[in-house]
Amino acid sequence: MTHFMNKKDDMVTDAIDGTIAASGGALSRLDGYPHIRVVVRSDWDKSKVALVSGGGSGHEPAHAGFVGQGMLTAAVCGDIFASPSVDAVLAGILAVTGPAGCLLIVKNYTGDRLNFGLAAERARAFGHRVSMVVVDDDIALPALPQARGVAGTLFVHKIAGALAEQGASLEDVTAAADQVIGKIHSIGMSLDTCTVPGSPKEKRIPPGMAELGLGIHGEAGVEQIPYESARQAMMAMANKLQNVMGGAPCVALLNNLGGVSVLEMSVLVAELRRSAIGGQISHLVGPGALMTSLDMRGFSISVLQADPQELALLSAPSGVRAWPGVVELVADTVVVLPDGLSPIKATPSAHEPTKAFLTRCCNVLIDAEGDLNALDAKSGDGDTGSTLAGAARALIEALDHMPLADPTQLYRAIEQELSQTMGGSSGVLLAIFFAAAGDASSSGLPMRDALVAGLQRMQEIGGANLGDRTMVDALRPALDGMQVDMATAAKAARDGADRTAAMTHARAGRASYINADQLEGHVDPGAEAVARLFEHLAKELA
Amino acid sequence: MTHFMNKKDDMVTDAIDGTIAASGGALSRLDGYPHIRVVVRSDWDKSKVALVSGGGSGHEPAHAGFVGQGMLTAAVCGDIFASPSVDAVLAGILAVTGPAGCLLIVKNYTGDRLNFGLAAERARAFGHRVSMVVVDDDIALPALPQARGVAGTLFVHKIAGALAEQGASLEDVTAAADQVIGKIHSIGMSLDTCTVPGSPKEKRIPPGMAELGLGIHGEAGVEQIPYESARQAMMAMANKLQNVMGGAPCVALLNNLGGVSVLEMSVLVAELRRSAIGGQISHLVGPGALMTSLDMRGFSISVLQADPQELALLSAPSGVRAWPGVVELVADTVVVLPDGLSPIKATPSAHEPTKAFLTRCCNVLIDAEGDLNALDAKSGDGDTGSTLAGAARALIEALDHMPLADPTQLYRAIEQELSQTMGGSSGVLLAIFFAAAGDASSSGLPMRDALVAGLQRMQEIGGANLGDRTMVDALRPALDGMQVDMATAAKAARDGADRTAAMTHARAGRASYINADQLEGHVDPGAEAVARLFEHLAKELA
Repeated sequence: MTHFMNKKDDMVTDAIDGTIAASGGALSRLDGYPHIRVVVRSDWDKSKVALVSGGGSGHEPAHAGFVGQGMLTAAVCGDIFASPSVDAVLAGILAVTGPAGCLLIVKNYTGDRLNFGLAAERARAFGHRVSMVVVDDDIALPALPQARGVAGTLFVHKIAGALAEQGASLEDVTAAADQVIGKIHSIGMSLDTCTVPGSPKEKRIPPGMAELGLGIHGEAGVEQIPYESARQAMMAMANKLQNVMGGAPCVALLNNLGGVSVLEMSVLVAELRRSAIGGQISHLVGPGALMTSLDMRGFSISVLQADPQELALLSAPSGVRAWPGVVELVADTVVVLPDGLSPIKATPSAHEPTKAFLTRCCNVLIDAEGDLNALDAKSGDGDTGSTLAGAARALIEALDHMPLADPTQLYRAIEQELSQTMGGSSGVLLAIFFAAAGDASSSGLPMRDALVAGLQRMQEIGGANLGDRTMVDALRPALDGMQVDMATAAKAARDGADRTAAMTHARAGRASYINADQLEGHVDPGAEAVARLFEHLAKELA
Repeated sequence: MTHFMNKKDDMVTDAIDGTIAASGGALSRLDGYPHIRVVVRSDWDKSKVALVSGGGSGHEPAHAGFVGQGMLTAAVCGDIFASPSVDAVLAGILAVTGPAGCLLIVKNYTGDRLNFGLAAERARAFGHRVSMVVVDDDIALPALPQARGVAGTLFVHKIAGALAEQGASLEDVTAAADQVIGKIHSIGMSLDTCTVPGSPKEKRIPPGMAELGLGIHGEAGVEQIPYESARQAMMAMANKLQNVMGGAPCVALLNNLGGVSVLEMSVLVAELRRSAIGGQISHLVGPGALMTSLDMRGFSISVLQADPQELALLSAPSGVRAWPGVVELVADTVVVLPDGLSPIKATPSAHEPTKAFLTRCCNVLIDAEGDLNALDAKSGDGDTGSTLAGAARALIEALDHMPLADPTQLYRAIEQELSQTMGGSSGVLLAIFFAAAGDASSSGLPMRDALVAGLQRMQEIGGANLGDRTMVDALRPALDGMQVDMATAAKAARDGADRTAAMTHARAGRASYINADQLEGHVDPGAEAVARLFEHLAKELA
């Protein structure tokens, strides 16, 4: 089982139930499961021309997803890739057709033509006015007089649907549909075959190849070509279309055959625009999964040279969620970058005591490099000491260019320095610490309170709490201790660091990924660094 | 190359270009490719609270697809599955933030938290009011305090976005976002891993297994379970959700992780509704590809117990096409089948000459069975004779129950008989022939004209023209000849049938699939049957 389904035989009725549920009451179905699978508009009063389409399932959201105001009135669903029965089509017609009549929109496949055709005859025998149009938009097989009906059918649904919704006559709706059909050209391409539920996957398209000119039922394409890139694939498609479409502006419909990621579909939009026909495309429908072939990793392009009335009908609002709308292709707007991305370097200012103080602090970390690396080797990749020492060396180098006389600016300068020179999460976290401290300092808070504010923000962003075996376990007690004096702070930092040796169930930071017995008895290197810094400060200020 | 892309390094910028093109001017981007990839609303005037989200790419349409009126103001796009840089986030914030401030909506992944967090600090240093919320809706790993942010993030985008659009303050928008975040629960499942562009596919999930509790970056799920059916899969998901969600009604968001067909997603809606939590789901968002993991063949469910204000904000109209809207889950409406599906049997009426005439015609076909089969063997599966003879025998059997005295009703009765007893395309086509003839007869046309009308419709539906090597090549000349007399008709039918032996490039019917040299010199069996029938009629009427 490689599909999200229950029994294969229930798949279509299950999917219809889901489609109706997700419509919030907009769609209903006819009784008559499992043979009659017809989805209808719940709000239909038969006062206008009804539009009935359908065919084999496996092309969702076509066709049930396009039932709604301004598009289809009913969709008749067959088994996967198999035409619905004459009875099912007739049920659909009889359920929605009033005095205004009914237009059947049929994709050009023999089964659909015959079953919809006979159902139309039977409906006529009841006195109904029924007309039928056959969509044959596929250009893959130019020699065949019987071109297949593929995703371009959506143009017919939308234009005829909008016209019918306006109250046009059956004759006018049919004529408009026929006119559109005469102008649609479609072609498809895929990198792989689709997976038919309950059948083994056909491995027809070898890796590195793409199939060009395929239909929507998993049948083989006209040719296999080497696949190189989205650009080259689009070039092959655009060449085929250019041969038949003339030079006038057109609406393009970009259809996901089912298995292409949303990311890739957007790449294809960009390439369509850059392609040989890109300049001719005035409007776009999609990209989107509109007429799929189950999970096929392919796409199709349909083009229509729409006249102003057709464009207006295509653009008319509809109550159908699966219809993506039409947008005009306009030139991209590129907005200039805002100021502030190159941080304004604060004017350097000399302050020898601060320079000396910071240098000594940095040297504490440089001296601790080997010890901290050794501690880190117990729970990580053994580089905490080198990371901190490297940042400390860079900071010493930078001190002469720093605003040493302005505490607020100095916090921010340290933030910038750390975020540039110190790698990993810890570099960003310390940068956040100093940035927030600078923020607090600029509001006039004294140093300890500014540092508390920095710690607060660092914890918020990093997610570490006391007991999580991080530097917080030393830093928070130390900042608390500073309210008494620096000796208290240093003792609190040391006690806090030592406690981390017993914290074997880390809940944040990378130690959270390590087994308890690997951590047991070893102090966290970040907490150790903080303890050593505060022990130094206590000595210096003693 | 298994993806629709050009160079891997260009994939995200190409996709952004496509997204912007498909927005029809609604979206713009900041200058600064390739490092700064920020999509912004084109209509933004900074008069309201800005909403900025983003993260690694590969989750499309999230996040750029949700930029627009009533949702995000800007989306910051990283490489595939990699957090954007601090500079990129800062550029996004600075580009859209005015006096009303800015809310950052971040999914709970370390890289995003840190980079958005530091960018927020830097923006604050410029005097901007910036708040940040972290979405942690994934329930896959209940023991981890740092739950991941997944598709439930969409609830936050929509609710906070609608509130900001109404002009609410940064404090209120942030509080609303935090309240929503506290109530979202999500879980994901997949049948296969995703394919990361440029990397070999990881074969982690064996056939027949599903992974439950996975994130959106291709990382392994919490457990692998045997996969049996959509129902069983949904049961496993619903059980996980039921454990955490309480008993109140909720909104469910059904998300396609990227590679599930639209058909299957609808099956999953039906199963969600039938599941243990189905009764609690009052509203549905989706199904749709909202927060994808590239092409992953999986889905996720997010639930939110929304209060009335949240529900109103979720339901508020938005200018964002990728947002599928919210529907209320109502009871399905099943419409009774229309009358007319069981064809009304016309009242039998006796008419011995007609009965005898039709019986003789049928016997012509029965006698020709072997010859026609032999002809068909040259171009098909050799059963045309048996198909026609079988239908003829069934018709003889049925004559006593037919309205023999009423020509119009008789055509229709023959249509019903043929469509029930004669298989294949030809049975449907002949049924259409008699149905249309009955239609014409009911308007008062004489027999020959009624038959011409039948032929006309049969050709329309079947697509065969003169020269296409079908029964039309005998039938049309015969009906023309009837304007003179039956002998002329018979001769014309015979000549027409004989001409098919030279028609080696069939353009309709199944002979169109056969090589020319296999057809050369052999009369089409359908045309031969028509010729024999008219030769018999000519003799009978002579």
